[in-house]
Amino acid sequence: MTNHISGWAALGAKQKLEPFTYDAGPLGLEEVEVAVEFCGLCHSDLSIINNDWGLSKYPVIPGHEVVGRIVAVGDHVKELKIGQRVGIGWNVNSCMHCHECLTGHHNLCLQAAPTIIGHYGGFAERVRSHWLWAIPLPSALEMSSAGPLLCGGITVFAPLLIHGIKPTDRVGIVGIGGLGHLALQFARAWGCEVTAFTSNLSKAEETRAFGAHHVVASRNNAEIRKVANSLDFLMVTVNVPLDWTLLLKTLKPNGRMHVVGAVLEPMPIPAFELIMGQKSVSGSPTGGPAMLATMLDFAARHHIAPQVEHFPLNKVNDAIGHLAAGKARYRIVLDHAGPF
Amino acid sequence: MTNHISGWAALGAKQKLEPFTYDAGPLGLEEVEVAVEFCGLCHSDLSIINNDWGLSKYPVIPGHEVVGRIVAVGDHVKELKIGQRVGIGWNVNSCMHCHECLTGHHNLCLQAAPTIIGHYGGFAERVRSHWLWAIPLPSALEMSSAGPLLCGGITVFAPLLIHGIKPTDRVGIVGIGGLGHLALQFARAWGCEVTAFTSNLSKAEETRAFGAHHVVASRNNAEIRKVANSLDFLMVTVNVPLDWTLLLKTLKPNGRMHVVGAVLEPMPIPAFELIMGQKSVSGSPTGGPAMLATMLDFAARHHIAPQVEHFPLNKVNDAIGHLAAGKARYRIVLDHAGPF
Repeated sequence: MTNHISGWAALGAKQKLEPFTYDAGPLGLEEVEVAVEFCGLCHSDLSIINNDWGLSKYPVIPGHEVVGRIVAVGDHVKELKIGQRVGIGWNVNSCMHCHECLTGHHNLCLQAAPTIIGHYGGFAERVRSHWLWAIPLPSALEMSSAGPLLCGGITVFAPLLIHGIKPTDRVGIVGIGGLGHLALQFARAWGCEVTAFTSNLSKAEETRAFGAHHVVASRNNAEIRKVANSLDFLMVTVNVPLDWTLLLKTLKPNGRMHVVGAVLEPMPIPAFELIMGQKSVSGSPTGGPAMLATMLDFAARHHIAPQVEHFPLNKVNDAIGHLAAGKARYRIVLDHAGPF
Repeated sequence: MTNHISGWAALGAKQKLEPFTYDAGPLGLEEVEVAVEFCGLCHSDLSIINNDWGLSKYPVIPGHEVVGRIVAVGDHVKELKIGQRVGIGWNVNSCMHCHECLTGHHNLCLQAAPTIIGHYGGFAERVRSHWLWAIPLPSALEMSSAGPLLCGGITVFAPLLIHGIKPTDRVGIVGIGGLGHLALQFARAWGCEVTAFTSNLSKAEETRAFGAHHVVASRNNAEIRKVANSLDFLMVTVNVPLDWTLLLKTLKPNGRMHVVGAVLEPMPIPAFELIMGQKSVSGSPTGGPAMLATMLDFAARHHIAPQVEHFPLNKVNDAIGHLAAGKARYRIVLDHAGPF
């Protein structure tokens, strides 16, 4: 197989993607190469294309919700075989020897290598990763919609596991979009009482279908006040500034507000609100390989799936425009079967 | 015994305390009355005298770090006997039937009654509380300095217990004052590696004597950067705005910054800093009766004691001036043995 890989790249910040071929060099001893079948388009792809976080390295081949088949394995690869179906998410590597890697939190490794920063992602024929970061996919998962679980799914699943959320807990989800519609499904399958906070009440029926028991208008402070002191856990999936003090008041004593949306402005958090109710504010970034495997197993068992819209890979710029316009319902997946 | 109780009260915000007598009425069925022997002067007394938190109800008799002997018990009081030595802290009552009370977190009860808000505190001959909130004192404790454990002590002890801090953890304490010098002792006895952050390096030797393994200049950003990614838990005991982003960077992945100082300005917390390192920011208010008893037992067993300066009760205004001037080393206790 050639070491040249073709895909779609942004050559600079905020530029349209264009066809781009790179020389991947010889396959690393611990690497696998995956022929991409489907790849999700995530809001973080937009952030990296646009350099919103100041971390981008161009050319950027986006795509970190990869579903595909292994086509090559390095000599030191364990477990994985050619032909096996795997998923690749936000990271393709980590140092494997730090405390975080040794304790299963590989995604918190300070040397963790993102799939689309300084590495070429999944909007391409093939993509490489360390074998540990290529996660075998349960056969019960529908492959054409599994991609968004690898980043969006793990992002909203991990907080439930990390913080020991119990089925007896009352959980709120703020923002019913690409992340939120998955968070509703996971929280419902977790056994929790689920309250959705959405700015778009026209989605209320759909929101209930995803798993919400209750729907609250997130731009109506009077409505939010009605659920004061009622939640054990509030997951914020949006990336815009909110009335954080008001949202903290929806928590019961000992409650936690957890952000997974990367809002850029610092959140003004009143110490008093944390102290009086013994509350926490926290965040988390995706998950490690063990948690990814656990999440995929849970999703397959509970029939949790992203609701997706499909675009062929060569219409990737249309897909990006659709997402940037806030029109995605609820995740976008690029199909690699067509022509490049 | 008469129902009239004499003490020292502030009749309005920011006023000096003056002699004041009130009619406590008949003793409640579940109440005990305690003859005060010693009472700590806590920074929260100042905040309530000055109405810094907008919660004060005048006249205010401050004093919520009470050490004394039970002199009367209501007919439905359990366990406690006349003559028994007890301590009373921030609260004198709670509803006893909410989820928090039923699960041992009485201090988080939304109806919890503070000792010095709408109730008369311990700068007086006697003070009353619900029997559950009068905590028996281990005989091994030195009574003349035990008072500050009831509020200051529990405030810095509770976070270690609530958040499951392990002896293998690296713990930072920001601010080595009334709270911080107790936090150092508890964290050291907990088995942790302890780093003190202080703006006053002239306290460095004393700080090590309290239990710090390392001392960092808290106003020197370059020094703080040297301990980046090193701490599991950072307890902030000061009530002034700090560089929260920089402090968050001292935490390892999965680390937590916990505030017990009631800084009034909202803390600007960057979501990215929480997300990338899977970090938490939290707070807590004192502790419930079970935790108070656990703390007192731990303090007695590990010879943990506040370093105190004594004032006679009738010099209470001098004591308040000393505290307000930032001169307390490290807690102040009023002795009730002298004349009122």
